Amino acid sequence: MSEIRVLDEQTLRGTVSLDGALIDVIERAFAGLAQGGVVMPPVLSMHLPDANGEVDVKTAYVPGLPGFAVKISPGFFDNPSRGLPSTSGLMVVLSAETGRVQAVLLDNGYLTDLRTAAAGGVAARWLSRKDARRAAIFGAGMQAKLQLRALRLVRPLDAATIWARDPAKAEALAAEMSQTGLPTRAEADPQAALADADIIVTTTPASQPILQADWLRPGQHVTAMGSDQAGKNELDPRCLDRADLYVADRISQTEAMGELRAALAAGIVAPPLDFPELGDIITKRHPGRVGDDQITIADLTGTGVQDTAIASHVLALVK
Amino acid sequence: MSEIRVLDEQTLRGTVSLDGALIDVIERAFAGLAQGGVVMPPVLSMHLPDANGEVDVKTAYVPGLPGFAVKISPGFFDNPSRGLPSTSGLMVVLSAETGRVQAVLLDNGYLTDLRTAAAGGVAARWLSRKDARRAAIFGAGMQAKLQLRALRLVRPLDAATIWARDPAKAEALAAEMSQTGLPTRAEADPQAALADADIIVTTTPASQPILQADWLRPGQHVTAMGSDQAGKNELDPRCLDRADLYVADRISQTEAMGELRAALAAGIVAPPLDFPELGDIITKRHPGRVGDDQITIADLTGTGVQDTAIASHVLALVK
Repeated sequence: MSEIRVLDEQTLRGTVSLDGALIDVIERAFAGLAQGGVVMPPVLSMHLPDANGEVDVKTAYVPGLPGFAVKISPGFFDNPSRGLPSTSGLMVVLSAETGRVQAVLLDNGYLTDLRTAAAGGVAARWLSRKDARRAAIFGAGMQAKLQLRALRLVRPLDAATIWARDPAKAEALAAEMSQTGLPTRAEADPQAALADADIIVTTTPASQPILQADWLRPGQHVTAMGSDQAGKNELDPRCLDRADLYVADRISQTEAMGELRAALAAGIVAPPLDFPELGDIITKRHPGRVGDDQITIADLTGTGVQDTAIASHVLALVK
Repeated sequence: MSEIRVLDEQTLRGTVSLDGALIDVIERAFAGLAQGGVVMPPVLSMHLPDANGEVDVKTAYVPGLPGFAVKISPGFFDNPSRGLPSTSGLMVVLSAETGRVQAVLLDNGYLTDLRTAAAGGVAARWLSRKDARRAAIFGAGMQAKLQLRALRLVRPLDAATIWARDPAKAEALAAEMSQTGLPTRAEADPQAALADADIIVTTTPASQPILQADWLRPGQHVTAMGSDQAGKNELDPRCLDRADLYVADRISQTEAMGELRAALAAGIVAPPLDFPELGDIITKRHPGRVGDDQITIADLTGTGVQDTAIASHVLALVK
């Protein structure tokens, strides 16, 4: 049994953080998804109405990596009233050659937070204007903070605004980010928050759209990463019509649980769906943004290849 | 992190074994499945053609149990050439209240072996003749041995026969079982092997039927537990027509990957499917066997409730 590594959250936090190397790792994972050979089954999703909870299991096999992750992500929404975070979970890493368990990463969701934020960095690197300097973030939770940090790794930001349903949380995050050297202000009106932004990242669990299509202006890039269940929706479906380019992390997921789902339901878009995926942009199968005046949208629901990629990255780092 | 229990295979082998208590635990799990409130999503199944492997993930929430298991079962079929077993894996136990990880059971498939055998015991207890004394087992692997041990826990067996594709393995298992006090002989002809049997258990990975319908005689009970993928098939589909009673562990699974799938494909049975499940028999929603001359079939594909049940049983034992 000694060959199975069991790494606890503290060890993982000391091993990997949100940095340029991680963004590169996640970028290569999306490239691999576009290049073929990846096996990524549909998400296993279990709803537990008795406990107001849900559990998602994601996995993906990526050719060339020595292992693959199976990630178990619980979300139990009464936890905050018990003083516990809603989300937790772990990743199990299996050998891609033998299926034997190589490692158990008891991350309580830390690695998911990182790989989710890193995907936002990848999306901004490939889709936002190269001279993007101002960011707007919707939401004030962990992903709001991490997405903003990821943007700073790929674009020379000099200002940010935060809008959140709870203005006090927006103020607190703005103060925290300002202390890290990025002048950040909270803005109570979401339209005003994004008016000057080059990059907008929505990180909320909204079930009714917040960002309206006519608020968008030429040149802006939007990354919507809050929707990961069929009941969630952050963008007015007309945003997809207004945008010059819509990019999914994985079409088969965004049509079922991303912003694309809401746009399909609203009749704004209709099959056949020939939108590119993020990996198509990275691998130059699709040109991506072709002008500074274009409006681009990245719809991120979270994929198993990101989990396999970050787990493999962690195991390489602890060797 | 200290509250997460990580139990290795050796500890698990020292904690739980195939006994009457475990059969009762698995029986209650099937009863729960019939009584409602159980949430059991479809199996997540990933095929890895590059590695000649597959991974299944099963889970189920069972009301009243403090936790639920997510089981990861890899099968990598080139492993034997490396001196490794084909199957391995682990179970993760999450709190049914908070979703937090409670335990990681690094069982390498040991608990799956036990809960699978225990289901065979439950099926025999409810479906075979009470006076069943002779068993026939098809196959000579781990499940062949465990299924025979499970039968001895529920019926007063006084003889057994083993048929296997490899006669040497059948001989070896027969010798081993005879040493435990059950006179057991290997039989090279499968029809002869089951001729005198009251209970037949098929444990092979056959993709072409072995057991022919006209070999069956009144009073026999068959448990087919080898098929757990759409390509597998142990029973001549006409067996389902010949039987007086067909019982699934879970219809939604057996129609996709059990003997029922092959019978549907052959046109021997057709929707609507109104067969009972094992839990319906246990909870007396269905009378089960109603005469000593009936032929009964149990089609077992393996369910997430068995995993949650054995994992909960283990955690209660180690407390």
